Amino acid sequence: MNNQQNSRNGESGHQVMIYDTTLRDGMQGIQVSYTLDDKIKIAHALDEMKIDYIEGGFPLSNEKEAAFFRQIRKESLTHARVVAFGSTRRAGMSADQDPMVRALLDAETPAVIVVGKTWKAHVTTVLKTDQEENLRMIYDSVQFLKSQGREVFFDLEHFFDGFRDDPAYALQVLQAGSDAGADCLILCDTNGGTLPGEVARIIESLPRQKLAPLGGHFHNDCGVAIANSLAAVEAGALQIQGTVNGWGERCGNANLCSFIPNIVLKTPYQASCAPHIQRLTHLSRFVAEKANIIPDRRMPYVGDAAFTHKAGQHADVINKDSSLMEHIDGRLVGNERRIVLSELAGKSTIVEKLREYGDFTKQSPVVDDLTRLLKQKEHEGFEYEAAEASFDLLIRRALKLYQPLISLRNYHLESYKTAEMPSKTVGRLFLETRGRELLGASVCVGPVDTLDHALRDALEPLYPWLKKITLSDYRVRVLNPESGVSARVRVFITYTDHDTTWDTVGVHENIVEASWQALVDAIEFYYNTIILNSENS
Amino acid sequence: MNNQQNSRNGESGHQVMIYDTTLRDGMQGIQVSYTLDDKIKIAHALDEMKIDYIEGGFPLSNEKEAAFFRQIRKESLTHARVVAFGSTRRAGMSADQDPMVRALLDAETPAVIVVGKTWKAHVTTVLKTDQEENLRMIYDSVQFLKSQGREVFFDLEHFFDGFRDDPAYALQVLQAGSDAGADCLILCDTNGGTLPGEVARIIESLPRQKLAPLGGHFHNDCGVAIANSLAAVEAGALQIQGTVNGWGERCGNANLCSFIPNIVLKTPYQASCAPHIQRLTHLSRFVAEKANIIPDRRMPYVGDAAFTHKAGQHADVINKDSSLMEHIDGRLVGNERRIVLSELAGKSTIVEKLREYGDFTKQSPVVDDLTRLLKQKEHEGFEYEAAEASFDLLIRRALKLYQPLISLRNYHLESYKTAEMPSKTVGRLFLETRGRELLGASVCVGPVDTLDHALRDALEPLYPWLKKITLSDYRVRVLNPESGVSARVRVFITYTDHDTTWDTVGVHENIVEASWQALVDAIEFYYNTIILNSENS
Repeated sequence: MNNQQNSRNGESGHQVMIYDTTLRDGMQGIQVSYTLDDKIKIAHALDEMKIDYIEGGFPLSNEKEAAFFRQIRKESLTHARVVAFGSTRRAGMSADQDPMVRALLDAETPAVIVVGKTWKAHVTTVLKTDQEENLRMIYDSVQFLKSQGREVFFDLEHFFDGFRDDPAYALQVLQAGSDAGADCLILCDTNGGTLPGEVARIIESLPRQKLAPLGGHFHNDCGVAIANSLAAVEAGALQIQGTVNGWGERCGNANLCSFIPNIVLKTPYQASCAPHIQRLTHLSRFVAEKANIIPDRRMPYVGDAAFTHKAGQHADVINKDSSLMEHIDGRLVGNERRIVLSELAGKSTIVEKLREYGDFTKQSPVVDDLTRLLKQKEHEGFEYEAAEASFDLLIRRALKLYQPLISLRNYHLESYKTAEMPSKTVGRLFLETRGRELLGASVCVGPVDTLDHALRDALEPLYPWLKKITLSDYRVRVLNPESGVSARVRVFITYTDHDTTWDTVGVHENIVEASWQALVDAIEFYYNTIILNSENS
Repeated sequence: MNNQQNSRNGESGHQVMIYDTTLRDGMQGIQVSYTLDDKIKIAHALDEMKIDYIEGGFPLSNEKEAAFFRQIRKESLTHARVVAFGSTRRAGMSADQDPMVRALLDAETPAVIVVGKTWKAHVTTVLKTDQEENLRMIYDSVQFLKSQGREVFFDLEHFFDGFRDDPAYALQVLQAGSDAGADCLILCDTNGGTLPGEVARIIESLPRQKLAPLGGHFHNDCGVAIANSLAAVEAGALQIQGTVNGWGERCGNANLCSFIPNIVLKTPYQASCAPHIQRLTHLSRFVAEKANIIPDRRMPYVGDAAFTHKAGQHADVINKDSSLMEHIDGRLVGNERRIVLSELAGKSTIVEKLREYGDFTKQSPVVDDLTRLLKQKEHEGFEYEAAEASFDLLIRRALKLYQPLISLRNYHLESYKTAEMPSKTVGRLFLETRGRELLGASVCVGPVDTLDHALRDALEPLYPWLKKITLSDYRVRVLNPESGVSARVRVFITYTDHDTTWDTVGVHENIVEASWQALVDAIEFYYNTIILNSENS
């Protein structure tokens, strides 16, 4: 790439540590919420990408946050260091007795981050203490946590606003954190109101040789959080904090899915995740799925539309030399080029997916068949990124490695509610399995519950292994919300045998039917991959 | 505002002309399409905001584009100048005979913009001509259009890529446009791959005293289009091009809804639209509605979430001094602050929420009642952070300011599917509204669709205003996934009257019942806040 070569030619920049706060600051975003299990899975996905630090949460805030730290200690991460978040000690209390500071230690993480006030007005209005005590609170908290063997980051809340208000006090705050031994001083644009030129001017004005290394944490209220992060790095910052997809409070945080490839592909700076950025598109979509938020298709690098071109002359130029029309090759970040109205995408992915079943090439007829089928399914709204079990069944069917288990004859559900009686659903279904016809019936509250129970009512006497597997998550997304209630819905189901989990997908205008598809896939995947294998062995 | 004052103190910057290309480049965005009527209305909305230039389209491309120019000539705009877009003459043809150049004149606009090649590889690969002829094509086209009395802008396609490849040729291209009399030379980052530092370095290296004024046109493929536009202005650019909401090809263009308030509120530069930026939020939502795209709630300045805060200590600080927690007052751009509820919401939040209904204190009995009710509802799984309309109904009921509209007697739904027939749902419901009993029936695919249609079947003859409001988003989340299919689900619904939107929530083990609750809340909220007010006035 022209761009890359240009900026990397001969230059060499410092290492930038990437600090992810998806699981803490990111959870302040509207509509964002993750279960404990989601948080653990996201932490692993970040670790696989060699993100340097993962902020896991605020251990004092509630039991779910504390449970994350207990659980993540048992998991083995290969690269990332987990960080617990908290604030400086309270006014008038010693750091070792403050419950906030103790909760940070109890999280038993290799690193902790302590947030403190930089803006005088916040010291008086929020902390209700004086400037001197604020400096002592910072010093004591950082110093005590360092004495306990932790890597300690000091988060200077409202740093840029505080600096504009009183540069001398902001410097005293920096110095207090630095003197106490903080490993990095994080300059936060908490309200998100600072523009890149000012970020650069302020950081360059700091007496860096007297201070611990600097980092930056930017919010996107002016639409420049990514540019502010770049400006901070150019001014010498060694750590940048952000979130996957940029989700966070108000307009969000610096989007790591843009910042990371900017740094890796377009600047001379180094990052541990550089060799792994082809995972970025997957990471973005995986987190979106867990948050149950439709990701912005226009997102730089990882969005659906980021490398989408309209057919015609434009596409002709791309065929001649894609670097004339694209700033990078989208495959570098795991994304792909889409030529609208063309059928050319995806074969290499399918060859890759087929690898565990044998050696196939782009010329294999089954690759053609699967490419066509996949295009059609994706057009209907199926998405296999987060439903690998359903995709595996597509491949098995194409390769004739599939044994059907459930063949539906019909189902019938009645949901009713009266003023006196709460909502109920009565269901029955009639199906065939391996040559036998079976009837199942159930009365539950909701239709999906009723279907699942009727299915088990029919099958469990014949297949006792069904008792071992259960549904562990169920998510629904509307695909074309502008069509309102008649929109098509996509249902993702996670099933578990309490050892591993697998995900399936169903799409239909009727949520009942979409759920049925995903339920049947979940059971058939287990049957084809586990039960048949154990019967054969 | 601290920020504003700081950057505006004493300084004074040059005038920046704002050039909107929503109606031309913006229409290259995925899912974006406007009718002729939409385009005219958007042009008026831009004009009312005193946007300086409105690029109306490419008159040669199709009849709808040409019709726009015929129509807009008859409308009287108060400030904006309409611009027609086209390219330089073809190789080996005189400018006055080229159909593209003629189409620009036929558009009869006060200004035209001519796009030409800057990157040598595009000259040979796309134009299939040589570098000298490309320079003559630029010179002739600009010079001829100037001789016809137009204001002429020269758009240097792929300027930054071309400059990186061969700065000397890029300078010749600039000089050709300038010598031919172009009023502004627009430096385009067509592929969107340039970072702000490089934008600044390149522009600062140009021999500005020998050239016509410069402008900038940036794409968002690195997530820095807004920052690039700011960097161009700081380096002396007098015109910035962008689109409303940043929609455009791939990852979009510079978002004028962020760029404009950044320039007006945070820099010393001048813009004609400065006194009118309180129209910005309306403009953003108006264009979104015309494009039928749900705007990003996290958009800087104009998004729903841009001034949204979670309740608790945070909200207390805002009550004391909002400038401590917000980078600007959202009202400056026509947006508003929202205090949303969090899991930890206390009495002070409820007092805050009640403010618009009167003066209540933490001691008011209604605050006690609401606190208890909220705790109970949140325990059941309701979440009002993203469902303010449902919360408003809770308050109205507590204050006896609520007029019920829909009282359900019963509903009955049947969903069935056979091997031969796709899934269907038949539904009927029986309800009372303001003393009348009504029956509604419907056959649709899914149960929620069926309920919504049956509800409208019953109510629309009596309440024709229902036809104006529609569902615009529908989201489902499982609350206790460990309970599998019998888990409780939470449904969020967004309804819109195409001017504002409001959100409601329903929670139940039966997704049908949860959806019913949210649907009824959505309609009753509109009835209580809008319909009853208009009946009373």
